Order: sequence, then C-alpha cells, then structure tokens
Amino acid sequence: MIRVGMGFDVHKLVEGRDLWLGGIKIEHEKGLLGHSDADVLLHAVSDALLGAANMRDIGYHFPDNSSATLDMDSKIILRETVRLIATKGYRVGNIDATVCAERPKINPYVQAMKTCMAEVMGIDEDRISIKATTTEKLGFTGREEGISAYAVCLIEK
Amino acid sequence: MIRVGMGFDVHKLVEGRDLWLGGIKIEHEKGLLGHSDADVLLHAVSDALLGAANMRDIGYHFPDNSSATLDMDSKIILRETVRLIATKGYRVGNIDATVCAERPKINPYVQAMKTCMAEVMGIDEDRISIKATTTEKLGFTGREEGISAYAVCLIEK
Amino acid sequence: MIRVGMGFDVHKLVEGRDLWLGGIKIEHEKGLLGHSDADVLLHAVSDALLGAANMRDIGYHFPDNSSATLDMDSKIILRETVRLIATKGYRVGNIDATVCAERPKINPYVQAMKTCMAEVMGIDEDRISIKATTTEKLGFTGREEGISAYAVCLIEK
Repeated sequence: MIRVGMGFDVHKLVEGRDLWLGGIKIEHEKGLLGHSDADVLLHAVSDALLGAANMRDIGYHFPDNSSATLDMDSKIILRETVRLIATKGYRVGNIDATVCAERPKINPYVQAMKTCMAEVMGIDEDRISIKATTTEKLGFTGREEGISAYAVCLIEK
Repeated sequence: MIRVGMGFDVHKLVEGRDLWLGGIKIEHEKGLLGHSDADVLLHAVSDALLGAANMRDIGYHFPDNSSATLDMDSKIILRETVRLIATKGYRVGNIDATVCAERPKINPYVQAMKTCMAEVMGIDEDRISIKATTTEKLGFTGREEGISAYAVCLIEK
Repeated sequence: MIRVGMGFDVHKLVEGRDLWLGGIKIEHEKGLLGHSDADVLLHAVSDALLGAANMRDIGYHFPDNSSATLDMDSKIILRETVRLIATKGYRVGNIDATVCAERPKINPYVQAMKTCMAEVMGIDEDRISIKATTTEKLGFTGREEGISAYAVCLIEK
C-alpha cells in the first residue's frame, strides 16, 4: 500500500534570529520567526508525512501556543513524525522538497541538510531530495519578507 | 496502475458571502467569492483528481461563465469528478490537502469536512487528509484577502 | 519502485519578451523574463522529475549565470532531464502540472503543449496533464506581474 502527502509552510524573516533550514544552521543576517526554531523545510516535510498517513498536521501535534514546543528544535518534530506514522505501519518511500528563498543561496547546504535529515529519520539519504528556487523578486519570498517550503512524499506499508 | 495529481486554487474573501470549505459552512465574518459556492478546498481536490486522470481541469468541465454552474454547490463538482475519473477506470487511492488561511481556525472543522467529503466521493474516510496552515501574515492569505488550498492525490486502476 | 517529485517555478512578466509555455509560443503583449526562454511550465516539470530521481534541480544542472544556457530553449532542459533520470534507470510514470496566470487564457493551448512535451520527453501523451487556474487577481500572479507553475510526477524503475 502506497500513499502520497504534501506539505507547505511559511515563516517570516526577521533580524535577531538564527536561520535553521533542513536541520542546519545557515549564516545569514536574518532568521525565521516562530514558536519553535521555525525550520520551514522540516515543517513542510513533517506535514507531508503526517498528511500521507492521515494523521492531522504539525499544528495539531505540536501546538504553537504550548510551552513544551517553545524554541523546539524541529528535528525533534521530524523524528517524532516518523515515529507517529510508524505506529500505523508506514515507512518513508521518498521525499522531494523545494525551498523558495531569494537569499541566501540554498544549494551549498543541500548535501548537509540531506545527511542531517536522513539521520533524524533513520532512512537512506537517497530517499530525500531538496531543491531550491527563487520567486524572481516577486511576492513575499521575492521581497525577502519570508521563506516558504513545499514537500511531497510517498509512504508505504 | 497508479497516478499522481495535484490541485491548487484561490478565492477572494469578501463580506456578504457564506464561507464554504470542504463541503462545510463555517461561521466567519467573510466568505469566498466565486461563480459557484467558491469552496476552494473542494476545487483543489477536484482538480487534483482530474489532473491525475489526465481529464483537464474544473474550469474545463464546470466553466465559470455558465448559468449552469452559478452558485453551484461544489459537492456536486466533487461528486461529478469522481464519476468522471471512474469512466476511465480510476478510483481514489488517497488525498492529502492543505488549506492556507490566517483566519478562521480550520482545525476544529477538519473531522466534519472529512466525513462530508468521504460521503460525497463514496470512499473511506481514511483516504482523505485535510491540514491547515497560516502564511504567518505574509502574502494575500496572510492579509486575509483570500484563502488558498493545495491538494495531492493518488488514483489507481 | 516508484517515486514522487514536485516542482515550482516563477518568472516575471515583462514587455519585449516572447511568452513560451509548455514548449509553445503564445500570443500575448508580455513574455517571461529569464536567462533561458523562461518557460515556467517546462521548468516546473523538469524540477519535479529531477526531484523524484534525487538528482538536484534545474538551477544545479542548468545554471542561470552560464553563457551555455543563455536564451536556451527549455525543451532542451526537459529532454536532458529525461535523459538524466534514465541514467539512474527511471522513466516517467505520469505528470500533472498547473499554470497560475491571470492572463492569457491557457486552456486553448493545453493540447498543443501536451503534444509538444510528449514528443520532447519521448512518452505517451496520456502521461501528461496540464491544468490552468487564476489566483482571482490576488498576489503577484493576480496582478499579472508574473506566472507560476506547479508540477507533480511519479517516476518508476
């Protein structure tokens, strides 16, 4: 049995925060604002996996008004998501994600993100793809007001 | 044989309209503007199913300049879509959808939407996942000018 | 073995450029700006295929600061993408894409785009679906500042 899921997430870029993407800290003059570490890529991937398994979304499992999730490392969210879908017998087939950001350049960090995410999820690195695009200075990502991420996945049991 | 599809739809939030999402009427001070009832979630799901089956899109089957579709209940669009893909031998594998809205909160309505959509499509509720996210006050959904919805699906024959 | 991928791309609409979409030249008073011919639909589809195969993205294979890709016909990018994934043993299962544009109307061109893309990829036309939507005058696509495209695909080996 095979199922598909998709995730989409957005966080605001602000000064005075670290920028976490794909579990990696990236040098940049701004970071993403959120209740957790606001790792928009790990959030999109976690939502895709939960959606594929029909297990609600990260807002349901990790509410952003709870002190338990304040400043949470999103790698914990991703690891817990993989554990949750396993309770229904699902394992990750493959994941393909896209980060939309005008800056910074994401491509130099893709390999490190994949290595990190594979370890957190306990899966082979070849099952994870991360891509990057700009929105050509259009929209809120183009104006560098925020970063968005899309993810699709297949899960199987 | 298995195929994937995706749908994306947007409608404007305006005063003086009811808000329909996932086949459910939701209490809110604004509603979505459209030729039909503008149920952006059912439109995204219908488009994902039509796309997976390579049967064009909802604009093709339910033109928004026709008196036949004026104020149409989008549950009719979804039901007809499932009938259309069945003519090519396809049935729904699973659906995962995401609603992007700053307000109102979608999560309290997810179970009712799933029950409604499962009945309209004649499929098991476990085949339908609905998730919600905000865009953190960014973009047109963040400014509450509109609501958008994404859906992916697998169909099989 | 089956894998899923997704692509998202955006290009700016400007005067003095031709409008290429799905490999077809479309009559319009503006065209898409880019280093290549800026065919946003072929770029989204190529990215979906590369992502499914875990082979990075079109920015990695076809850098937009290289003279080799200046004014490049994106059909070359798509053809090369299909060749790249074949080196890992993958072939196209199906593709479903959505173009977001307020204007021009895309639907009259869908059949020609599919015929063109099927020939470029060397696959049956039934494996390619192209859909169109507006964003109801909202956001940068709604203001006709740009056109965006989404694509999902299954590949198999």
